[in-house]
Amino acid sequence: MNNRFTFVLSALLYIPLSFTVTQSYAQSDNFSEQQLIQVEDIKQQALESDLAWNIVESLTTEVGPRMPGTPGDKAAVSWAVAKFKAMGFDKVWTEPATFPKWIRYAESAAVISPSPQKLHITALGNSISTPKDGIQAQVIEFQTLAELENAPDNIAKGKIVFINYRMNRDRDGNGYGPAVKARNRGAVVSAQKGAVGYVMRSVSTANHRFAHTGGSHYKDGVTKIVTSAISNADADQLHRLIALGKPVTININVQAKSMGEGTSYNVIAEFTGTQFPQEHVLIGGHLDSWDLGTGALDDGAGVALTMAAAKLAVAKDKPKRSIRVVLFAAEEFGLWGAKAYVKADAQRISKIVAAAESDFGADKIWAFESKVHASALPLVREIAAVMKSLDVEYIGKNSARGGPDLIPFRKFNIPEFSLSQDGTDYFNYHHTADDTLDKIDPEKLRQNVATYAVFAYMAANAKTRIIGKTIKK
Amino acid sequence: MNNRFTFVLSALLYIPLSFTVTQSYAQSDNFSEQQLIQVEDIKQQALESDLAWNIVESLTTEVGPRMPGTPGDKAAVSWAVAKFKAMGFDKVWTEPATFPKWIRYAESAAVISPSPQKLHITALGNSISTPKDGIQAQVIEFQTLAELENAPDNIAKGKIVFINYRMNRDRDGNGYGPAVKARNRGAVVSAQKGAVGYVMRSVSTANHRFAHTGGSHYKDGVTKIVTSAISNADADQLHRLIALGKPVTININVQAKSMGEGTSYNVIAEFTGTQFPQEHVLIGGHLDSWDLGTGALDDGAGVALTMAAAKLAVAKDKPKRSIRVVLFAAEEFGLWGAKAYVKADAQRISKIVAAAESDFGADKIWAFESKVHASALPLVREIAAVMKSLDVEYIGKNSARGGPDLIPFRKFNIPEFSLSQDGTDYFNYHHTADDTLDKIDPEKLRQNVATYAVFAYMAANAKTRIIGKTIKK
Repeated sequence: MNNRFTFVLSALLYIPLSFTVTQSYAQSDNFSEQQLIQVEDIKQQALESDLAWNIVESLTTEVGPRMPGTPGDKAAVSWAVAKFKAMGFDKVWTEPATFPKWIRYAESAAVISPSPQKLHITALGNSISTPKDGIQAQVIEFQTLAELENAPDNIAKGKIVFINYRMNRDRDGNGYGPAVKARNRGAVVSAQKGAVGYVMRSVSTANHRFAHTGGSHYKDGVTKIVTSAISNADADQLHRLIALGKPVTININVQAKSMGEGTSYNVIAEFTGTQFPQEHVLIGGHLDSWDLGTGALDDGAGVALTMAAAKLAVAKDKPKRSIRVVLFAAEEFGLWGAKAYVKADAQRISKIVAAAESDFGADKIWAFESKVHASALPLVREIAAVMKSLDVEYIGKNSARGGPDLIPFRKFNIPEFSLSQDGTDYFNYHHTADDTLDKIDPEKLRQNVATYAVFAYMAANAKTRIIGKTIKK
Repeated sequence: MNNRFTFVLSALLYIPLSFTVTQSYAQSDNFSEQQLIQVEDIKQQALESDLAWNIVESLTTEVGPRMPGTPGDKAAVSWAVAKFKAMGFDKVWTEPATFPKWIRYAESAAVISPSPQKLHITALGNSISTPKDGIQAQVIEFQTLAELENAPDNIAKGKIVFINYRMNRDRDGNGYGPAVKARNRGAVVSAQKGAVGYVMRSVSTANHRFAHTGGSHYKDGVTKIVTSAISNADADQLHRLIALGKPVTININVQAKSMGEGTSYNVIAEFTGTQFPQEHVLIGGHLDSWDLGTGALDDGAGVALTMAAAKLAVAKDKPKRSIRVVLFAAEEFGLWGAKAYVKADAQRISKIVAAAESDFGADKIWAFESKVHASALPLVREIAAVMKSLDVEYIGKNSARGGPDLIPFRKFNIPEFSLSQDGTDYFNYHHTADDTLDKIDPEKLRQNVATYAVFAYMAANAKTRIIGKTIKK
């Protein structure tokens, strides 16, 4: 069919002209006409599919929280293997990853004086325990980590440091970096200033009373002190109490334990390519979550939507190149699954033709960007053109960052892609007990699946493989 | 000044004509021209005043949670006495009220099988404790209390009953009544059907993971079993797990205690009327709160906005009749302060010329309604006319219900008024840990203060006193 014939046919049969949109790619260098019709079909199927929703519902319900090293984590690995097999992936396997295991038993906090009241607190990952009855001390408040760093030595002697930095809300999550410094290093700097405990305002944009957990670190040679976060409402309350001008004493009780080396597993599956089975598109998310919620947004959604996208991308025909889904282990504790994946077989990294990880919730994808060799840009623009109908904007800077688990891949100069989700509300829920299934909008999830399915199909079936951008130093 | 002169003066001086609005009351039977100017001034002052915000900030910060019988409750009484005195009320006093005291120590719950995970739970008020390690049993789900009531005897034998009724969102809070039945009586009916424990979906419209507490009752001759509520997200999760078709076992651990009779105090203050000091307008809220949050919406806002309104209503002149603010004790445990107030001196009830309690959060007042003798309706309409500029609609049905603490007053046929707040979002927070100061919008709070100040001023200063509607039987 040529375009003119299609137009006439449309007019005769009263078929809407939008039907003919797919025909505009008929002169593509990268795809046959049939492939371009096929990608439109895949997109439509994805927009009507409940597959991703069913997967994330199954994971968050039947497994629930799955912190690395816990029974939930082990159950998640079994769940993923079974789910991939049930979905008909050609190959399904696991690869081990080790990590420093840490367990939370209990946590609580309260204002002791002037006005006794509970505080909603959570231990940061890796925190030591307090004594059985907690630690009790006067609080000293700082607005930023830098303010604490610049304060005199011993300013916090015998006290609990409270950093009250307020995270900025931002579509791209740019508020996270500045806020998370106080989570990563707050306890170390506090101890260096003489503190006996550390509590921070949550790295969170929530208006609800959930404390936000996340990784934290100690430093050799610096006394380890308890490290924790309180909800935004509690941070406001503590700030107001301190502002009254009288000493404010709180108690923090954390019972947690570092347990040595733990082991979990990357779960990997692929639909094998018919022409170039070694070459593969790599998509995925991380299978682990924090322990407080059921990890629906972080990262059940990423797991589910990439599994569903891979399945839908091969619904009609086997792909030319393989489509691989990697569910990384122990991301929350420091990308341990991704590091193990790269270390286990660096050779295979060179066979990646396109990689993207979904790990930013379940809101709509609003942007698409590549980081590829210039020769691949025409193909990238063809993919972007199809995504446009999904309200996805093409960002032409060609400097994508494809997700946290792809950081260890980056030195191999892989073709990396961002399918950027709207993160405006992501940090309302991230790393809190409130990260539960009801926070996912099924319709937005389908848009994600459609975008990933288009991406996987086109990258796997293009005439020429995509190669990585050479990074100049 | 007559109207024509005002118009000419406005035109000459370029004073906006809206200035002349107050003149439209010049022919009022109930108020002098000066009084009508004064009420407009009060309204404007209230719309610009931070007084109520400062009061509720002080209460929720310096006192915090204040469940009847706790140290917080005691602190709240001292706080209220001191605050009234500092605000210059003419008389400030307390009156005792007793109630059945109950204390919450700890609560937790978890799915044991098939997929271990925590549940966010809270004990309902009056719940007994479980054994130290909780109770563990299979869950049986019902959608409504009626469904459980109609089920065969012994259907729940040895099990934990779960009622999954979903509360409707409604501006007037009409979803509360149908939902709260399962809170009041769920444990009794469950025990009658052989259950060993009871848990319900929270009486809540929240999309966040907070369990909702509230009063509950046992019945003589029926075995007392633990009674509790889980958050909406957890109720969804439990429902999904049960729907998988395999037995679901949970553990509920509640440590709580009934402590016999407790005593708290109504805190009462008034600006004394110059002409009819015994006659009084009665406004107020309840001073106690549940223990989970800081009771900003329930009922710190009501306390603060009525205290502020009384103060602003007398800013220029002493009132003709007294304006009394009553902060009721132990409302949450069953209107114990209100009952004591009525019992202590029934004679004074006849001196109430207008009564309204604010106990429905801090959203805007959208409606005004009376329950008065027909002779007072022209005056009511004059009050409503002033409120109209505050976006308050007049409801002419003359069958107001003026707040929960006025229920014990009702048999005395007092002139009762509703100043109805928009309750659409109220049950997102009500009786949860998430009821904190940040949920109050300062601008909406000011609109409440202005409405109550107009009400108090006009009811206290009208030429003729308002009398109650005769209830026909």
